Parts: sequence; C-alpha cells; structure tokens
Amino acid sequence: MPKISDKGLQMPPSPIRKLVPFAEAAKKRGISIFHLNIGQPDIHTPEVMLNAIRNIDLKVIEYSHSAGIESYRRKLAGYYQKFNINVDYQDIIITTGGSEAIEIGMMACLNPGDEIIIPEPYYANYNGFSTQANVIVKPISSTIESGFALPPIADFEKAITSKTKAILICNPSNPTGYLYSREELEILKQLVLKYDLFLFADEVYREFCYDGKEYVSVMHLDGLDLQVVLMDSISKRYSACGARIGALISRNKEVMTAALKFAQARLSPPTFGQIGAEAAIDTPDSYFVEVKREYVARRDFVVDALNEMDGVFCPKPSGAFYCMAELPVDDTDKFCQWLLEDFSFNNQTVMLAPASGFYSRPELGKHQVRIAYVLNLESLNEAMVCLNEALKVYPGRIVKSSFKKEKV
Amino acid sequence: MPKISDKGLQMPPSPIRKLVPFAEAAKKRGISIFHLNIGQPDIHTPEVMLNAIRNIDLKVIEYSHSAGIESYRRKLAGYYQKFNINVDYQDIIITTGGSEAIEIGMMACLNPGDEIIIPEPYYANYNGFSTQANVIVKPISSTIESGFALPPIADFEKAITSKTKAILICNPSNPTGYLYSREELEILKQLVLKYDLFLFADEVYREFCYDGKEYVSVMHLDGLDLQVVLMDSISKRYSACGARIGALISRNKEVMTAALKFAQARLSPPTFGQIGAEAAIDTPDSYFVEVKREYVARRDFVVDALNEMDGVFCPKPSGAFYCMAELPVDDTDKFCQWLLEDFSFNNQTVMLAPASGFYSRPELGKHQVRIAYVLNLESLNEAMVCLNEALKVYPGRIVKSSFKKEKV
Repeated sequence: MPKISDKGLQMPPSPIRKLVPFAEAAKKRGISIFHLNIGQPDIHTPEVMLNAIRNIDLKVIEYSHSAGIESYRRKLAGYYQKFNINVDYQDIIITTGGSEAIEIGMMACLNPGDEIIIPEPYYANYNGFSTQANVIVKPISSTIESGFALPPIADFEKAITSKTKAILICNPSNPTGYLYSREELEILKQLVLKYDLFLFADEVYREFCYDGKEYVSVMHLDGLDLQVVLMDSISKRYSACGARIGALISRNKEVMTAALKFAQARLSPPTFGQIGAEAAIDTPDSYFVEVKREYVARRDFVVDALNEMDGVFCPKPSGAFYCMAELPVDDTDKFCQWLLEDFSFNNQTVMLAPASGFYSRPELGKHQVRIAYVLNLESLNEAMVCLNEALKVYPGRIVKSSFKKEKV
Repeated sequence: MPKISDKGLQMPPSPIRKLVPFAEAAKKRGISIFHLNIGQPDIHTPEVMLNAIRNIDLKVIEYSHSAGIESYRRKLAGYYQKFNINVDYQDIIITTGGSEAIEIGMMACLNPGDEIIIPEPYYANYNGFSTQANVIVKPISSTIESGFALPPIADFEKAITSKTKAILICNPSNPTGYLYSREELEILKQLVLKYDLFLFADEVYREFCYDGKEYVSVMHLDGLDLQVVLMDSISKRYSACGARIGALISRNKEVMTAALKFAQARLSPPTFGQIGAEAAIDTPDSYFVEVKREYVARRDFVVDALNEMDGVFCPKPSGAFYCMAELPVDDTDKFCQWLLEDFSFNNQTVMLAPASGFYSRPELGKHQVRIAYVLNLESLNEAMVCLNEALKVYPGRIVKSSFKKEKV
C-alpha cells in the first residue's frame, strides 16, 4: 500500500482534543464534565451578527473576492482604527479563521527549513502550522515564576541563526493570558530590525485586556511596516468560533501580494461568516464592557481558588481567558486523563488541557495545565471544588519544592 | 527588509482571476461583461439550504468537531449511498471547500519533492496546492482532438519515477468537461496498483453528467480502498460556492488519521456552511433534473455556436459545465485581455479564461480558452454573438491548419 507522508506522521495531534475519547466515555458513564480544556466561550454571539445571518436574502451563495468581501474589509479597517491601528482595507485579507491567517503568513514568508522563534508555552497549533509549512520552531522558554513575561533578549539572540526568519508572539497570550508591555514590544522591535526578521503577532484576544492595562499592538510600533504581519480572528471577539473568519494584515506589499496568491488558490473565505462578521462590527460597546466584567470576575475567582489549593500555583494573567497553573502531580497528561477515567466528585469531573502540548519539549509542561475560564461562575465554582478534591486523592500527587507562591 | 518566501514568489496567481482588473476597468467605461471565465453558477441555491441558514437558532456559534458535525457526516454518507459509494461517516472529514480537501490530501500523502501525475489541461489551482505542499506536478497531455480523453497508459508509465506518489484526476473534468469511462478508470486502477500509488479524484461535478453517460467514481473500483482519496465539495452541487464546504473521503485509515491531524490544526470547518449543507441533502431530485436540463441546453447551444464560428473547434463535453475551445488567434492570453481592453459590440464584451493557466506548460494552451456556461441561454446567445464579432476583427487572428472540425 502507498505510504502516507512524513508530515502526516509527524503532524502533532491536537493536545487540546486528544483527551476527547476519554471525555466521551465518561459522559457515557453518566458523569458531567466541566470543560475548561478548550477556548470555546459560552458568551452569546452578538444578536446583530446572528440577525444578519438570519436575514440573508441571497439567491445564490457565491464565492466572494479571494481577499474577502470589499465592504467588510473597508468596515474592518474602521474597526482597527478604534484601536489606533491605521490600515487600509487593501492591507487586509480575510481568512478562514485566524488559523488560515497563520498558515498563509508562514507560507508567504518562510521557506522550508527556515526557523521561527516563539516564546513558549505557546498555542499548540503553531506546531501544526509549522509542520505543514516545513518550518522549524525555535522555542524560547518563559517561566511560570515570572508570570510568563517576555524571556530575556539574550535568550532570543542565542536562538537566532542564519535560518531565522521570524518571531511569533501571541498577545494577549493563549495559553498564558500574559499581556506584553510596550517595553517588551520595543525590545522585539529592536531585535527584528537588527536581524532583519518578520514579526508575526496573533492578537485575537485584544478585547480581553484587564486591570486597566494597555493593549499595545505590533501595529503600533513605528518603522516596522515591512516586518509586521498581524494575524487576527473574530472567533473570540464575538464568541463566533464556528464562523471561521479571520484576517491577515500587513503594510508590506510584497507579503500581501504573495498572501493573495495563496488566498486565490482556495478561492474565497466563507460567505455566511463574512456577512455575519461585517454586521458584528456594529456590536455595541456595552457588549464588550459586560463580557470583560464577566471574564474579570471569572479570572479572579479561578486564580484565587487555584492558589488556595494546597501545592497549586497560578500567576494572575492580564488578558485573554486562560490561566496556566502548576499542579502538585507527577504528570499532568496522566492527571488529566485520570480525571476523566478514574475520578468523579458528586458525579462530576473536570477536563483540563495538559500543558505538555504548549511546549516544544513536552517535559517542560509536565506539571502545568491550561485552564480556560469559559464557564459561568457557578460552574467554575463547582469545577474548582471538583479539582481540589481530585488533587487530594490523585495517586500521583507529589510535593514540589520549586513552587514559588510568594512570587504571585 | 525581510524577504518573502520562495513559494510566495513561485505561487502562481489565479489564471481565472488575473484578468479581473481589466474587467473592472471595462465596467467603469460602461461596458457589460458576460462572465464565462469562472465556474460561479447562476443557478439558485436550494431553498431548503437557505432556509436552514435563516432559521439558525444558536446562541453561540461554536467550533464544530474538527472532522465536521457528526450528524452532517452521517447524512452525507447516506448521500453517497445514492451513488453506490459505500462509505462510513468515519471515512469522511468535512473540509473548508473542496480546496482544503485537496490541500489536506496532498499534505497527508506526499512529501516535499514527491511527484503527482495529473492529466492536463487541469484545474489551475492544483498548481497552487502543489506549490504550497512543495509537491512536483508531472503533467501528461490530453488533447483537444480526442476531446481530452485519458492519455495513453504508456504516457503515464513514462512519467512515473521513484518520486511518484499519486495520480490526480478530476471527473467530470474542470476545465474540459470530459467524463472518464469505466475502462479508463480500470486502466488507472491497474497503474496505481502496479506502482503503489495513491489515486486522488476530484469529483465535485458528479451531478453534472449528460447524455445518459455513466458516472463512475474511483470509489466504485474494487480493491482500491488503500489507494483512493476522494475530494468533494458542495459548491457546484447546490450552487453554494461561498459556503466553503467540501469533504475528504478515504477508506485508508492511515490517511484519515493523518488528515484529521491537519483538520485539528485549523480547528473546524465553517459551522454556518455545515448547517446549510446538512439541510441541502434534502434537496428534491426535481431540482437536479431541472438544473441538468438547463446545463444540457446551454452546453448544446454554446458548443454548436462555437463550432459554427469560422476557425473555432470545440469538442462536446459530457459533464461539468465547461468546454474548451480552440480559437483562431495568436495567443488567447492576449485575446482575452483585448476582449476586455479594446473590444465591445453593442456595448458588451465577453470574459473567458485563457487556457494557458490550465497547462503546466502555458504554451500548450496558447490557442485554447475555457468557457464556463454558467449564464442563461439568452445571455449565452448574446455572448456568442459578441465572441463571433470579436474573432472577426481581432488583429491577432490566425489561420491554423491543425483544427480538426471533422473529429467533433
């Protein structure tokens, strides 16, 4: 029989989804699961978006322009203006989710064998997109003790080789919730200028910055028009993950010319999603005020609850809707599977994302989990009770002296 | 400044869309254009599909399963049953259009540098997907004189090397409209078994087979479960190109396991499109009877009109909604641009797809165009009048002795 490809073998399975069969089995046994493992928010999609879909009066669902519907691109440029991001609609290509923005960005800028530096832990699917593009990820470790701040510049310089083509950040970060400061971004600016690199930024969580902290986009950095490639998505903004609408944005015309050719090959992004996304730009500000208030309350609750658990450490993030916690267990991959296979409390259990999948070297995430606080406070309360009980009885519990609660 | 990638430079622009700026300029001058250049049907999307979209009562537009909504996959397996294609829902991954099915299929089965044999002329975007995957296309020429029948088996054998991993066919074919016979498919079966190759088939036009001719799927070939990978799409079937819903189908579990990992990296196919596609399976048969009747009338009209033009030759295709015509002009790239820039008749002109983009060596298509008969008969009539007038006055008109009208 013909053999599948090497990259078909090497492609990493989704670390967020690999526990799904165990969850399905638990459900069949009648156990309720609190899903804190995936960034699928429970927040309602704005009515203005849903109504646009319900009122579609097209007779033929046609391809759109490969770069997206022009009226949507123009309106989207206006949306960015509100964040002091000055882009023309021609600097924007609408993509099929943020995923495709990353795929096309990588293919347009990096050759097979080229290297991309990414601070870890990072969004697990960056590994998948890199494998697809035959690009090598060079991770630089950030630490839970520092709350996952930007690693020292010396670490970047050590990692840079003649094959390095780009640095990729996620800001605010999935999985850590860390929000980069202006000073950190200025450091990255100097690096990409010094070494002639692209600066990729995945900023799909910009609506979710807390505690009055400033959102600084790579697009705000002066003199980086040729370096910066922004990857965006409406999935989290409007709780519309299934619409599969994102955007690739750059002021570098060569990048956009190449990106458009990849966009043309797949013809067009989804028409229904674009119609909804265009309407969603009219979502009232009050929606975001309410959503943010809700996420802050959830974050505060979850982070406090975690840090109150014996042996658990969780730095308080300033953005997105994730936190990373260190747990007193032998191996979070085993622990998360055990939660689904062997544990329940009041007939409930918790599904978490083991952090191994967010590191290039899985062992770095062996004692950490990512928690998505995408459930309401009542469910989060029950989930935290459940987790606390589980940690008490988990057979692989350990005491780890390196936990540094005092640094919270 | 950082340099874009080699594949960003090499990626071919869409030959179907490259004339768009000239068309836009013509429209600005007040000229109406008959768009025969793109496979965007004017047929209405079934009401049952549009109603499903209009009646969406979700509160949150969530990710679906990476392989697609299970109820849709199950129902889709039932749809294939009607064509005697026996597949389980687990043999199906829902993709973002047929485009993504081809992308994922290539990535799952071919390594960079591997070769894929494709009879030419072929769907232009196969070049783009191959460039993305760093796969080498080895074309085998079919000829307009034979109506674009399968090239001789000896030509395939000559092209096969140690790097050959797959053969890709489009059946019924875009751009030629050719429908492969059972005998031709049996020849391909022997080839892939003899040389241990994958057999990829893009069968998105299966609803459009004419003159009572039999649609034979690669899925109908016995003993090829490990070789066959089917790429499908609802775009043409339900005139829903913008929904971006396709499918990758194989009984080879290794291929599907690898494909699912690529599917997981991009999270999920579009939710709105899947909801519509699931409902569309209930489209009454009468819809297809009517659509087929319409396309047959259009094909007959266009092919006859073309062959009546002085110096034009167009074999009559048995499927899809395209035909390839040889025109008495120096270069169809120039001619198609001239139609938009310098010609009009009754303030109208015609937009065609120069065939150069459908060949790996553009010169092979220098005298051919692809015509998509996706307009109503009245418009097609006006378009053919327009084309006939254009050929009379085009400054680059030539007489080519090789035209073989007698073979029609």
